[in-house]
Amino acid sequence: RRDVAEAVESVDLGQFEHYMLKEIYEQPKALADTFKIADETELSDERFGAEAAAVFDQVKSVQIVACGTSFHAGLVARYWLEELAGIPCEVEVASEFRYRKRAPQPGTLLVTVSQSGETADSLAALRGQKDGEFIASLVIANVDHSSLVRESDLVFLTRAGAEVGVASTKAFTTQLVAFLMLTLLLGRRHGMSEQDQDKITDALHALPSHVEQTLALDASIKKLSEHFIQKQHALFLGRGIQYPIAMEGALKLKEISYIHAEAYPAGELKHGPLALVDADMPVVAVAPGDELLEKLKSNLEEVRSRGGELYVFADKKAGFVDEPLLHVLQMPSCPEMLKPVIYTVALQLLAYHVAVQKGTDVDKPRNLAKSVTVE
Amino acid sequence: RRDVAEAVESVDLGQFEHYMLKEIYEQPKALADTFKIADETELSDERFGAEAAAVFDQVKSVQIVACGTSFHAGLVARYWLEELAGIPCEVEVASEFRYRKRAPQPGTLLVTVSQSGETADSLAALRGQKDGEFIASLVIANVDHSSLVRESDLVFLTRAGAEVGVASTKAFTTQLVAFLMLTLLLGRRHGMSEQDQDKITDALHALPSHVEQTLALDASIKKLSEHFIQKQHALFLGRGIQYPIAMEGALKLKEISYIHAEAYPAGELKHGPLALVDADMPVVAVAPGDELLEKLKSNLEEVRSRGGELYVFADKKAGFVDEPLLHVLQMPSCPEMLKPVIYTVALQLLAYHVAVQKGTDVDKPRNLAKSVTVE
Repeated sequence: RRDVAEAVESVDLGQFEHYMLKEIYEQPKALADTFKIADETELSDERFGAEAAAVFDQVKSVQIVACGTSFHAGLVARYWLEELAGIPCEVEVASEFRYRKRAPQPGTLLVTVSQSGETADSLAALRGQKDGEFIASLVIANVDHSSLVRESDLVFLTRAGAEVGVASTKAFTTQLVAFLMLTLLLGRRHGMSEQDQDKITDALHALPSHVEQTLALDASIKKLSEHFIQKQHALFLGRGIQYPIAMEGALKLKEISYIHAEAYPAGELKHGPLALVDADMPVVAVAPGDELLEKLKSNLEEVRSRGGELYVFADKKAGFVDEPLLHVLQMPSCPEMLKPVIYTVALQLLAYHVAVQKGTDVDKPRNLAKSVTVE
Repeated sequence: RRDVAEAVESVDLGQFEHYMLKEIYEQPKALADTFKIADETELSDERFGAEAAAVFDQVKSVQIVACGTSFHAGLVARYWLEELAGIPCEVEVASEFRYRKRAPQPGTLLVTVSQSGETADSLAALRGQKDGEFIASLVIANVDHSSLVRESDLVFLTRAGAEVGVASTKAFTTQLVAFLMLTLLLGRRHGMSEQDQDKITDALHALPSHVEQTLALDASIKKLSEHFIQKQHALFLGRGIQYPIAMEGALKLKEISYIHAEAYPAGELKHGPLALVDADMPVVAVAPGDELLEKLKSNLEEVRSRGGELYVFADKKAGFVDEPLLHVLQMPSCPEMLKPVIYTVALQLLAYHVAVQKGTDVDKPRNLAKSVTVE
C-alpha cells in the first residue's frame, strides 16, 4: 500500500476526476506502447527475452496461472492460443493451482500474469513448480524488477505505465496485447499462415484507434449507467471469447460499485441462473455480431420473456435495436480479435459511471488493495 | 417436460413434502446402488462397457464436458483424476466446448455427464467431435436408452432412480461415485498403489453411512437456514476440491430460493469479491479440516472483520466454534475423498430449507426445466 501511495503522489490526475477514468483513457497510448518499441514494426521473439526463441521452439502447450483480472486475461488468451495458434492451453487461478497435485502435460510453458509482478499466489505458483514440470516460465507483468520478473525465465513487460486505480483497466488490456503477440510467435511455429500472422499484426496496429472510437461512446455509456444505480444485482452474459470479457465486466462493477454482478457463459443460463431473472436483475450481454450471435439472441429472449431488463453491447452487424426491456449500446465495428479489448473498455466505462453516481470511492474501493502481496 | 410429468405421476412422495427432500434422503441407497451391483464387490472395467478395458489402456488424458450440476461433478472429478490417478484432466461447459476451435491433446478420452442423457449442448459436443480428436467417448448418465447413452462408446449408468425435483441432488452425488470408480480404474493403469485402490473401494463402501450421518444434521441445518430467509445475496467459498462443492451449493440455493448466491475459490476473495462483503452478504464456507484449512481461516477472518456473517461447514478437526458473526455447522468426520459428497448433502439441505421457508416452488422453480433438451 505504501507503493500505491507513492505512485499516487507521482502521477498527475490532469483533467480527470479519478485515476480510474484517467487510466481508461490512457489505453490507446498504453496499447500502442506495449505493442511497439521505437520504430520496431516486426514482431520478434526477443521482445520476450534473449532466450525466448529457443524456448518457444519447444512449446507444445501452455499453462497460464494468475489471479483476478489477470486471470481473465489468461482466459481470453486460451481462445487465441487454441484457435489461432493451435496450441493446447489451460488457465487456472493461482491459489488453486499452487495447492493441487497436478498431472502436467510434457512440453508445457508456464505463464504467469500479474500487473504488479508481486501477486503472492502467482509468485508461489512460480516458485512451487516441480523439477521438470515445465520447460520454462514466462511472466507478463507491468512492473520491472518485480519478484515475478526477476524469477521468471522469460519476461514480457507491458507498457501501461503506473496504474493507480485499484480496479485494473489499462494493465488488463495491455496484457491482452502481450498475449496476441505470444499467440503470433508460437503460432508461427505451429503452421500459422503468413496471412493470419499479418492479420494479427495489422489488428495490433489498428487497436489504438478502435479503442479511441469506443471511448467516444463515453456519454452514451454514462446514460446507460443510470439504469444500474438502484440495482443490487446484475448478470453478465457472453459466449466464447466474450465470456471472460463478461467476467471482467462483472468484476469491475463488483469491485467499485458493490453491485453483486456475476458472469455466466450464456449457454449455462437455463441450467440455473435463469431462476434469478426478474425485473430486479438487469442482464448485460456482450454480443458482438459473430457466429454465436443467434445462440445468444435466443438466450436473451428467455431473459426478456421473464421480465429481465437487457443491456446489450453489440455492433451494427448484430442488428439489435432499442425495444421495451432492451437497451442497445452500439459498439464500433472492428477486427474479430480486437473485440475482447474494445468490449472491455466499454464495460470499464459502465462500471466507472455506475460507481461515480453511487458515490463510492472509485479509486480505492472498500476492502480491496491494489496489489495482493499477501495470501 | 412431458417426461417429467410422467415421472411425477409414477413416483410416490411417501412421507416427504417435496420430491427434492425425498431425493436428498434417497442418496444413501442411490449411492450404494450405483457402486454395487448384486454381490459384486470387485470393481471391474466392464461396469463401463465391454470395450472399456481396451479403451482405458490407451487413455493419457481426460476431457470432461457437461452443463450445470453435471459440470460441477466434472470439476470434482478433475481433482481426483489428477491427484489420485495422475492423469491430466480438463473440464469445460458444453455450450463453450462445442463452439470452440479446440487444440486437443493426443490420447484423450471424452467424458460427457448428464442426468437425463439428453442435455442438448452435451449431446452436440459428443456429436461434434472431430475425426480422431478423442480415442473414445464415455457418458455418465442416469437414464438408460437416452441419446447420450446410445451414441457413446462407453456408458456408466448411475442408479439414482428417477429424479423429479428440477434441482439435481442424488444424480449429482451418484455421478461422483461413478467418477471415483473411473479414477480407480484409470489409476490402476497409471501406477496407483494397491493400497490407494483399496482406500477408494473402502471409501465407496463406507459412503452411504457417512451420508446417513450427514442427513442426521437436518434439524441443525434447518435452524441455520433461518438466517438466510431475508437475504438477497450469499457468497460460497471453498478451496481445492471443495471449490466445485461451493459452486454446487451456490447453484442449489440460486435455483430454488432465488437468492443470488455466487461461489468463489477462497483465494480469489481479495481480488474483487471482498468489496461486496458487508452485513447483508452472508458467506458460506465449505471448510473441512484439511491442509488448506489455515489458508481458508485467514480468508474467513477477512470476511468477519468487514462485518460479514459467516456460516462455516466444518468437521471437528477444523476446530471452529460459534462466535459472534460465526456460525458453525459441525460435520461428521469421514475419509478425505468422501468429503465432497457429504458437504454437498449438507448444502442441498440448506438450500431446501431456505426455499421452503421462503415459500418458493421447490420442485419446480420458476423459469427452469428438468432437462435442458433445447439449446
